[in-house]
Amino acid sequence: MQLIILFGGASYEHEISIVSATTLKEKLQDHMDLEFVFCDVDHTLYHVHAKDMKAKTFSSGQYKKFAKLTLARGKFQNVKLFSKTELHGIVLNLIHGGDGEDGTIASLLDFYEIKYIGPRIDASVFSYDKRYTKWFAAARGVKTLEYETLHADEHKDTRFSFPVIIKPARLGSSIGVSVVRSVEEFDYALDVAFEFDNTVIVEPFIEGVKEYNLAGYFAHGEIHYSMIEEPQKTEFLDFEKKYMDFSRTESAHEATLDENMQKRLKENFKAIYRDMFEGALIRCDFFVIKDEVYLNEINPIPGSMANYLFKDFPKAIEALAESLPHRKRPKVTYEYIHSISQAKGK
Amino acid sequence: MQLIILFGGASYEHEISIVSATTLKEKLQDHMDLEFVFCDVDHTLYHVHAKDMKAKTFSSGQYKKFAKLTLARGKFQNVKLFSKTELHGIVLNLIHGGDGEDGTIASLLDFYEIKYIGPRIDASVFSYDKRYTKWFAAARGVKTLEYETLHADEHKDTRFSFPVIIKPARLGSSIGVSVVRSVEEFDYALDVAFEFDNTVIVEPFIEGVKEYNLAGYFAHGEIHYSMIEEPQKTEFLDFEKKYMDFSRTESAHEATLDENMQKRLKENFKAIYRDMFEGALIRCDFFVIKDEVYLNEINPIPGSMANYLFKDFPKAIEALAESLPHRKRPKVTYEYIHSISQAKGK
Repeated sequence: MQLIILFGGASYEHEISIVSATTLKEKLQDHMDLEFVFCDVDHTLYHVHAKDMKAKTFSSGQYKKFAKLTLARGKFQNVKLFSKTELHGIVLNLIHGGDGEDGTIASLLDFYEIKYIGPRIDASVFSYDKRYTKWFAAARGVKTLEYETLHADEHKDTRFSFPVIIKPARLGSSIGVSVVRSVEEFDYALDVAFEFDNTVIVEPFIEGVKEYNLAGYFAHGEIHYSMIEEPQKTEFLDFEKKYMDFSRTESAHEATLDENMQKRLKENFKAIYRDMFEGALIRCDFFVIKDEVYLNEINPIPGSMANYLFKDFPKAIEALAESLPHRKRPKVTYEYIHSISQAKGK
Repeated sequence: MQLIILFGGASYEHEISIVSATTLKEKLQDHMDLEFVFCDVDHTLYHVHAKDMKAKTFSSGQYKKFAKLTLARGKFQNVKLFSKTELHGIVLNLIHGGDGEDGTIASLLDFYEIKYIGPRIDASVFSYDKRYTKWFAAARGVKTLEYETLHADEHKDTRFSFPVIIKPARLGSSIGVSVVRSVEEFDYALDVAFEFDNTVIVEPFIEGVKEYNLAGYFAHGEIHYSMIEEPQKTEFLDFEKKYMDFSRTESAHEATLDENMQKRLKENFKAIYRDMFEGALIRCDFFVIKDEVYLNEINPIPGSMANYLFKDFPKAIEALAESLPHRKRPKVTYEYIHSISQAKGK
């Protein structure tokens, strides 16, 4: 199997995507043919060979010497005056955050009819914006925490008692996120969040909440679940700490949970996944509060594809690649135009 | 001003888009420079000169002789061995239905940093699928009719009393839509709708509902509203009848409405539009039932851009083109990778 890992992107998580891609190289290179396509911040695409997959290649700008790629039907290509090289295979969309998770890359690959692992357009939109995730979860019968929305152009207080957690509406990871314990800290935390998004959501911050992460994907007729992990955390995961996830390769420790709770977490995962995330391997992060399950967030392109939660990660990627959804193309017959033309007598 | 009208697309509304584009040629050609880009069902792009903008050009396949275009940063281009022609300007996304209204074209133009008139990704997703429109409207405090969802893979009855109206969840116009008056007609109508989408919505069909259409766009700091029209209708608008809208150029007749109702329709329009549809000229179709306003649907790329609702349509397009939203691009500094590298001592 030829897998093309697409990473980078015009995103606040650009660097993290590079870390994720080098991690996946390690996890997958003995099991399949890997090619890498780097999307820089200007949306130029470069062909990167596996041997060059080091963080320094990108931070030093060295990648700019590599072959540039353009998109064509079913492939990436490098067209020169008298030669053309082509890159065929299934793409793994590993662009975290903007571009990758907001629906842009999904659309691009759909348009050029390139098969890919990753969320489709609707799935991207509903997981990228935290407000839309809540609407979607509600429609699927999955609980989320109560929240309010603040906009950059209007000063507002929160209706919740402190502590609260403030998050930019449209960023993944923990960028711009703060826990606020007093009114004095509130404005500063808002300013930080508004650096990244003009819409911010505020939720009550509940101490000592149990958090569980569960990943999964649909292949060969059913959803395959990963182990359930209780992530190690300080008060909440800050940018740097959380991002170490993107370089994780060692197997996680399975959470100690009774069968009933395992079943309930999986049921909630399934309610979110089915008829929406097919084609993607996603990680859902849940809270358990007073024995109730709440969805915290959906990661439709989790850091390093949550490889550490799967017993046989290469096999998971292969199974998923064999079960990608097809987009139905309409037929165009020009019958309607013919009938108008006939009606007009010409 | 140079305006590039992008039309066609892999969509059940492909032919209608051609009709829309030829209509806009008539309305706009005396006011601005027009270029046309045709997207065929295979997603090949062709440069069409204004003089060739006739339905027959497309139904006969004659367009296949025209110059092929590819997308590049900020432009369409035709690259030959020793020459290159480029097409710069603001795009008007006039691809109705699939591709144009589902977020694909928006993503493509965003990715290549081409300025365009049309709905952005999120706006496309929330207006394309009738279920998501209802979630979105609810979050904005706008009423919609109650409904239920049926899937192709499970046989179901409706919980509503007849008559009901059946609609494919994700198609615009009236394709696949039926009014069903008895249980005998129900299965057949479902089969018709499932031809176009594996998800169908059912709503109660209310006789004698008043329907009002209102279009508008955001430019120079405020929303500009069109006149309000009460569309002429038979029981409901069938495919052919409705599609005559796509070739409409004569001014509509303004609905006779008291000031208060006009104000309420505009308030509902604004609640839908703001912070979502900027960059687009949309038409909202409302029902009024027992003095309550309900949103029926959002047309983010209305047939022939609802030109017939505006007193000065070319001016509307110009104003909108001057007020297109900017997408904020993140900076990438590689600070994070540098700090990791330093921590690792290499």
